[in-house]
Amino acid sequence: MNTAMKDLYVSRTDRTSAIIARQDPVVYEGAAYADALAPGQVADYERNGFLMLENVFSDQEVKALLDEVGRMSADPSIVGLEEAITEPGSDAVRSIFRVHQLSDMLAQLARDPRLINVARQILGSEVYMHQSRANMKPGFKGKEFYWHSDFETWHVEDGMPRMRALSCSVLLTENNACNGPLMLLPGSHQHFISCQGRTPDNHYKRSLKQQEYGVPDPLSLQLLAEQGGIQAMTARPGSVVFFDCNTMHGSNGNISPWPRANVFMVYNSVENALAPPKYGLRPRPEHIAARGSFEPLAPLESALALG
Amino acid sequence: MNTAMKDLYVSRTDRTSAIIARQDPVVYEGAAYADALAPGQVADYERNGFLMLENVFSDQEVKALLDEVGRMSADPSIVGLEEAITEPGSDAVRSIFRVHQLSDMLAQLARDPRLINVARQILGSEVYMHQSRANMKPGFKGKEFYWHSDFETWHVEDGMPRMRALSCSVLLTENNACNGPLMLLPGSHQHFISCQGRTPDNHYKRSLKQQEYGVPDPLSLQLLAEQGGIQAMTARPGSVVFFDCNTMHGSNGNISPWPRANVFMVYNSVENALAPPKYGLRPRPEHIAARGSFEPLAPLESALALG
Repeated sequence: MNTAMKDLYVSRTDRTSAIIARQDPVVYEGAAYADALAPGQVADYERNGFLMLENVFSDQEVKALLDEVGRMSADPSIVGLEEAITEPGSDAVRSIFRVHQLSDMLAQLARDPRLINVARQILGSEVYMHQSRANMKPGFKGKEFYWHSDFETWHVEDGMPRMRALSCSVLLTENNACNGPLMLLPGSHQHFISCQGRTPDNHYKRSLKQQEYGVPDPLSLQLLAEQGGIQAMTARPGSVVFFDCNTMHGSNGNISPWPRANVFMVYNSVENALAPPKYGLRPRPEHIAARGSFEPLAPLESALALG
Repeated sequence: MNTAMKDLYVSRTDRTSAIIARQDPVVYEGAAYADALAPGQVADYERNGFLMLENVFSDQEVKALLDEVGRMSADPSIVGLEEAITEPGSDAVRSIFRVHQLSDMLAQLARDPRLINVARQILGSEVYMHQSRANMKPGFKGKEFYWHSDFETWHVEDGMPRMRALSCSVLLTENNACNGPLMLLPGSHQHFISCQGRTPDNHYKRSLKQQEYGVPDPLSLQLLAEQGGIQAMTARPGSVVFFDCNTMHGSNGNISPWPRANVFMVYNSVENALAPPKYGLRPRPEHIAARGSFEPLAPLESALALG
């Protein structure tokens, strides 16, 4: 008798690319676990796979967060860590991981009810932080990030069992048509794009700079884009984009002089804790995919002004 | 006695970068030479260095032009020419030059009063075609084009004496925030950014794929962008952007599935015919910079539907 569970979302085998229907809810427990979002907002999230909330954080809070991220990007004791990722062909810091543990202010942001209660409501449970990072897409030389589903990576490389996680991106600079805004494919969260090609070990060190594995095929992308279009998340600083772990997204480069900065947090349901990675891959480091503890993150009593 | 004229727009020397004020009019002869534009449109062009006219060509004309460019991109007898430029690291055709001589339909477009009479009005004289090309920024893998002033290149590499030329870009696909639209720096045409670094011979073969010389310095770009902002030319197919030869422009990459196609024509005043290139450089080929004939191009009697 074979008791092994069949992998619902198989990817990176020698099989050809395929589109697999989502087997999981998008919104859990009828969105009754918390009350951060109104029913119409929950419905938008469920249909599109994302939700943009404008002006969640004040100008003063944005400035405090931007100062904090700027301070960290210039701090040699942080830039020297494995947590700090530089642009290809440059010394400019592109991302700092695990910011919710490297900074008191960002630890507070991670537990801010304006973020975490949206995650608890959508995911229908307590949540913990799977990954956090600050992204600085520098002016002039910000490189593109090709289309991908985070879940595809998290499922294969981190052993995340189901689609019960979401990301939020807190915009710290204006995102406009000129500086390579986040682009999302509405409705793409309902389809799992199984990618072709095996993953080599230690892949994560390169994949954070440039995607080579887990890359969706052009035909599937074309179908998803024709079905739902592409939405560029152009908005003022202080806005927040919440998106499902399986929503296909990417961004173009940035030759404008204006950096594009955000803080990015991934909440995973405590009922969706990581299993071992697929195909015997070695687990990625703790700052990329937390597996040291799946203890829930406690929401702050109320939203305190940051800074 | 030294009778050599001083170069008003010196660039690519060993000197450091510099910002030089424009020494030439933007609009010549009081815009009285033709009457394609209304006075308010001429004033906008003069102030910003560009003008977007929406829906100049009908959907039917756009389709005919797109079919013609598609046909040319797939024609082995054209793809094999030096006129056809491919994307870096790919066989996809990025540009075809000298299209106004390789295609009857595009020859007609070059003389269409909706384009050429704008050029004659702004430049205050008869005009000829300095360069023409069709650009296809392919979906998924369209690469960025960094900031540059066309005039800087045309002055140094082609010996174009003065700022008395303009470009027009006929949009054949929708240009939006997702597919790397043309970006312009309003007001930048009033400043000549003198670039550092000598130009090697045969530079043109590489520069059409990726800029390495004649690259404006970040500080000058920052100043220009802070002064006038950046405008992304997002518009429907059939719209036309006219811009001055010295207006700073560029475009981000394109990871969207949608190609970005346009036909690009450069009209130069017959009173601004090319001199020898600077620094003893060899003239670039005829399809990049026409110097075989400076005979004026005759406008068609009236706008005929293309196709």
